[in-house]
Amino acid sequence: MQDKSYLMIPGPTPVPPTVVAAMTAPIIGHRSEGFQVLHKGIIAKLQKLFQTQNEIYILTSSGTGGMESAVANTVSAGDKVLTLVGGKFGERWSELAHQYGAEVIELNYEWGTCVDPRLVQEALAANPDIKVVFATQNETSTGVVNDIESIGKIVAQTPALFVVDGVSGVGGIEIKVDQWHVDILTTGSQKSLMLPPGLAIQSISDKAWQVIEANKSPRYYFSLLKARKQYPKWNTAYTPAVSLFVGLDAALDMMLNEGLDNVYARHKLLRDATRAAIRALGLKLMTEDSCASPVVTSVYAPEGIGADDIRKVLTKEYNITFAGGQAKLKNKIFRIAHMGFADQMNVIIAIAGLEMALQKVGYPVELGAGVKAAQQVFLGE
Amino acid sequence: MQDKSYLMIPGPTPVPPTVVAAMTAPIIGHRSEGFQVLHKGIIAKLQKLFQTQNEIYILTSSGTGGMESAVANTVSAGDKVLTLVGGKFGERWSELAHQYGAEVIELNYEWGTCVDPRLVQEALAANPDIKVVFATQNETSTGVVNDIESIGKIVAQTPALFVVDGVSGVGGIEIKVDQWHVDILTTGSQKSLMLPPGLAIQSISDKAWQVIEANKSPRYYFSLLKARKQYPKWNTAYTPAVSLFVGLDAALDMMLNEGLDNVYARHKLLRDATRAAIRALGLKLMTEDSCASPVVTSVYAPEGIGADDIRKVLTKEYNITFAGGQAKLKNKIFRIAHMGFADQMNVIIAIAGLEMALQKVGYPVELGAGVKAAQQVFLGE
Repeated sequence: MQDKSYLMIPGPTPVPPTVVAAMTAPIIGHRSEGFQVLHKGIIAKLQKLFQTQNEIYILTSSGTGGMESAVANTVSAGDKVLTLVGGKFGERWSELAHQYGAEVIELNYEWGTCVDPRLVQEALAANPDIKVVFATQNETSTGVVNDIESIGKIVAQTPALFVVDGVSGVGGIEIKVDQWHVDILTTGSQKSLMLPPGLAIQSISDKAWQVIEANKSPRYYFSLLKARKQYPKWNTAYTPAVSLFVGLDAALDMMLNEGLDNVYARHKLLRDATRAAIRALGLKLMTEDSCASPVVTSVYAPEGIGADDIRKVLTKEYNITFAGGQAKLKNKIFRIAHMGFADQMNVIIAIAGLEMALQKVGYPVELGAGVKAAQQVFLGE
Repeated sequence: MQDKSYLMIPGPTPVPPTVVAAMTAPIIGHRSEGFQVLHKGIIAKLQKLFQTQNEIYILTSSGTGGMESAVANTVSAGDKVLTLVGGKFGERWSELAHQYGAEVIELNYEWGTCVDPRLVQEALAANPDIKVVFATQNETSTGVVNDIESIGKIVAQTPALFVVDGVSGVGGIEIKVDQWHVDILTTGSQKSLMLPPGLAIQSISDKAWQVIEANKSPRYYFSLLKARKQYPKWNTAYTPAVSLFVGLDAALDMMLNEGLDNVYARHKLLRDATRAAIRALGLKLMTEDSCASPVVTSVYAPEGIGADDIRKVLTKEYNITFAGGQAKLKNKIFRIAHMGFADQMNVIIAIAGLEMALQKVGYPVELGAGVKAAQQVFLGE
């Protein structure tokens, strides 16, 4: 049926009607007073979301562009950096650091688990010349959330910067930039922030600025020094995606009106219900409860059944889209996002659809058993 | 009056209601068949617009990001390059090339004039080791259109690549990528293409690919090699701004339905009418007729009057926004864009508003004289 579709991938995510409507406003000039007022207001709201007093910069790019900005502005060729790698987005930090000529020390942790902060401490002790530690808050490829607070406190005791990929988590999972000593937090618009893709958002600490000022790597579009020149006037260095700024303002209003604590509690509830449902269906979750992501749940396909076969049925029969596995997880797992503009009924749809799809691909389940388990979580039973 | 505003700056430009409406469609996954079909269709339409058989890549960034992509993918540290500089966007090529460690030879031409192709030929003859020539089709800061055809034919006789900034011109001014030997044409969404900011679009020739493959500069988000891996499947390397893709498709349909020849003729007519009106008001145009831009007209403020004072009155009294001068032209000129979603009535509004604003700032003109001159051009008198 036209216009009935259920997008449940970890970005891009559905955009709320209020935000869509806001973005239909006429285009405004990017050097106009109207834009500057909008920009100033957005930054104040983002500082609440990030729990920071730091300056926050909005780049017109997808999340990877923001990650490249974080690397290009802090890593000079020959610098030693530490990357925490337990999935595709951890790997991206390593790839980016290599591009900029860094000597990369990788702390690999098993895909589906979260990183042990003590290992970060050991790596820093063994390599006191590490300049930057790159971490992932929410590893979207596996559905893991890392303990940014503990890692941040460790890195803060060293001269190294702490850079965190918050692309898929920020807006759905709490982050305390100042208290947790995150020098650069970088995120994207199209995940928990409920916007179309096209913006990368990052906060910069004073400790980070000192490194950025001394940095030698080539950068222009992503240059934070160029951006900083325009910041006091609430301008951007280059033409910003003005309609996405308008949408971001509306999305932040929605989140602040709901209350950030409620937003985070909602995501945890959706996670818990999804996991209970998956277990009730006898399927295997990829992550332990202790580091399970509040915004995306990874599930192994039953033995002998391709995860992508299940996904195909879901798309074809019910217009429900789950994400597949990436890299070595391809066709082995599917991922259900409950991220951003998602409520209890989205989980019900996901699970009911999954039950029917499993039936169709020849893996009989007790229809309704998963839905019931989710309902029980929602009812607090 | 709320919702009555006339944005006449050379980007971002107003977005047609049909395009706005298209972009309110629900978000689709960026690895979905729906996206791939959309992407494939857009590229075919862009190839008509660019008049090329080359592959065309769409990046999620503003126009400057596309320019950085063109530099980062073709310039290795130590390469000698030639930049043609007659305004702020020509200077941007030099700045970008310096960032990537190039030895930059600047061919400076006077702001407000266009570059003499013979000087390009002389520079290439004197420096046969030039690797890339960077030019600007439409120099937005001065309102000049350069002779890309003649320059392209000269560069094609050398091993150098010919890279053209078409950010503000493409969609309003004809370009023939293949026939004029443009190796990389790079443009943006928010100018003549009638979209919000957020996309950069570029075509890549076979000659360019050879250089790109051998290039040593750091790049990741803007890496065309990474983009090329995904191209056969109509995917992008990183999450694209899917809603802008939907809008781009709608905008291209509008342009192709109007007919590209008609689009270009419309812009020339708007230019001619604007220039006739300015002359009728006794003001001085910045550019000669021979290289006057079809999409933006630069006008000197009358002696003793700040261009920005005129602009302020226009904004405050009539909600009309002209652009100001940049860098050394600040407060000396104003720029009227007739770019993209612009018709005869937009010129009438611009000129009638300008007449009244001039009156208010103490430079009396014959009210209606400029409007009449524009009308005569429209009527072919």
